[in-house]
Amino acid sequence: MKLGIIGLGKMGAFMSERLLIHGHEVAAYDKSPDKTKAIEQKGAAGAYSLEELVSKLELPRVIWMMVPSGEIVQNTIDSLVKIISKGDIIIDGGNSFYKDSVKRYNQLKELGINYLDAGTSGGIWGLKNGYCVMVGGDKNIFEHCESIFKSLAPENGYKYIGPSGSGHYVKMIHNGIEYGMMQAFAEGFELMHASDYNIDLQGVAALWDKGSVVRSWLLELLNDALKEDKDLKSIKDYVEDSGEGRWTVLDGIEKNIPLPVITESLFARFRSRQEESYGAKILAALRNEFGGHSIKLK
Amino acid sequence: MKLGIIGLGKMGAFMSERLLIHGHEVAAYDKSPDKTKAIEQKGAAGAYSLEELVSKLELPRVIWMMVPSGEIVQNTIDSLVKIISKGDIIIDGGNSFYKDSVKRYNQLKELGINYLDAGTSGGIWGLKNGYCVMVGGDKNIFEHCESIFKSLAPENGYKYIGPSGSGHYVKMIHNGIEYGMMQAFAEGFELMHASDYNIDLQGVAALWDKGSVVRSWLLELLNDALKEDKDLKSIKDYVEDSGEGRWTVLDGIEKNIPLPVITESLFARFRSRQEESYGAKILAALRNEFGGHSIKLK
Repeated sequence: MKLGIIGLGKMGAFMSERLLIHGHEVAAYDKSPDKTKAIEQKGAAGAYSLEELVSKLELPRVIWMMVPSGEIVQNTIDSLVKIISKGDIIIDGGNSFYKDSVKRYNQLKELGINYLDAGTSGGIWGLKNGYCVMVGGDKNIFEHCESIFKSLAPENGYKYIGPSGSGHYVKMIHNGIEYGMMQAFAEGFELMHASDYNIDLQGVAALWDKGSVVRSWLLELLNDALKEDKDLKSIKDYVEDSGEGRWTVLDGIEKNIPLPVITESLFARFRSRQEESYGAKILAALRNEFGGHSIKLK
Repeated sequence: MKLGIIGLGKMGAFMSERLLIHGHEVAAYDKSPDKTKAIEQKGAAGAYSLEELVSKLELPRVIWMMVPSGEIVQNTIDSLVKIISKGDIIIDGGNSFYKDSVKRYNQLKELGINYLDAGTSGGIWGLKNGYCVMVGGDKNIFEHCESIFKSLAPENGYKYIGPSGSGHYVKMIHNGIEYGMMQAFAEGFELMHASDYNIDLQGVAALWDKGSVVRSWLLELLNDALKEDKDLKSIKDYVEDSGEGRWTVLDGIEKNIPLPVITESLFARFRSRQEESYGAKILAALRNEFGGHSIKLK
């Protein structure tokens, strides 16, 4: 089908390309004209403003947003509603907080504009392997757009989850689980790295891929990373988070569900970003106060 | 090659069968004669005592032990050393604590008997998919037995890790990581189960298998479990552990490596086994003492 894509970062550009390969007509816009130019080379109709993008689409317009969560999503929607029409469809393919998606769905509903929240997983490998797509919103709108999801996903790799927000909700939990799995690998490999056995860690990652219980796509990626840089010397021990982990933890608090592993995974990232731990200083100071234990002075 | 197998539980019986299929001559013994009889039907030479097993093997004998870790391993070795010869080889294919394996290696070395520690992963699916095999011990002894490991494993699924204990060490860490991954899935699915969205959890497990970042063998197994019993109504919320998780945590303490996720995964299993939490009673009592917060009486 014909659709517009807003946001041509790694995810948006690869998705555009995958949709083009599958025969869709893609009009694409990015705030950076270079990215629009690049996707034109792949066969998309480039747009250099939201207005131009909208003008290239047919009613009801289908617009896939692939922009960073938060303000940019809201600003993009606010700009779009001024130039699109009743019956048009906006799909948020990013990692928005599911409650924001429900709010946006309701706001747009009042204007007669349809809104789907589509959680997508697969990272930069999605172009080749396909993206796993989890969709929330009105089922008839999902069905109208189904050919898009089908093309983005590998076989059986997309699903209508339920009412508005449920697509992003399930994607949020997916990412929370991902945090926990990653941290489990991180801890196990750190332990092996500290072992006197002088273990070939890349060899172990490759080995475990063959028949072990922990075989997984993350393990394959770890194998690749260790192949490139056996001791990870080129990588700083600093880990960002883009929101889904903390939203998962907040959801656990809201629902009274204990999430020790996902929470610890999130906190491990916070710790990784501290240049200095005030908490550790408190501990050292207290040990000194009550027990006269020596402290390291700066 | 010709080898003896001791222990015909789920793992030992399936391994025997896989080795028979790959053309090895297997003599097999289990303390339960029924299990020995069953494996005879698959083509193994049944033995009804350790002595009979030993008599069926040729020098240097190769004996694969697949018995529960701990006392049974030690008792089996103590019995074997009385009836086997210098140059023979014992392989512990179970989940022994790696320091015990090093101790046994050294004790047997003094008697001229060779010892390998072979961590194996793959569960009851190993017969079909092959077992991932991690081997520690003397490299020449590993090489002597390599055709066994090759038959047990899928392609590239076995590896010589290093000196004695390293096979069981790497297997221990594998299982620690497994605990963390399992707990991450447990938490994420519990959260989705508590959601008002009425999410098709089995459908989500099946979906995530297609292109998502969390795709893994454990997720495939979870999908199978949810297919059989959507709400897991038939399963009690009680989780055993067989040692490797707690050894991993102890190893972290020994090496001063923080393992929050693996530790929490282990503790979640402990909590699952408490009929009543004395700690929770303490908390309730204290809240009552200082704040007059109501307590639930038994």
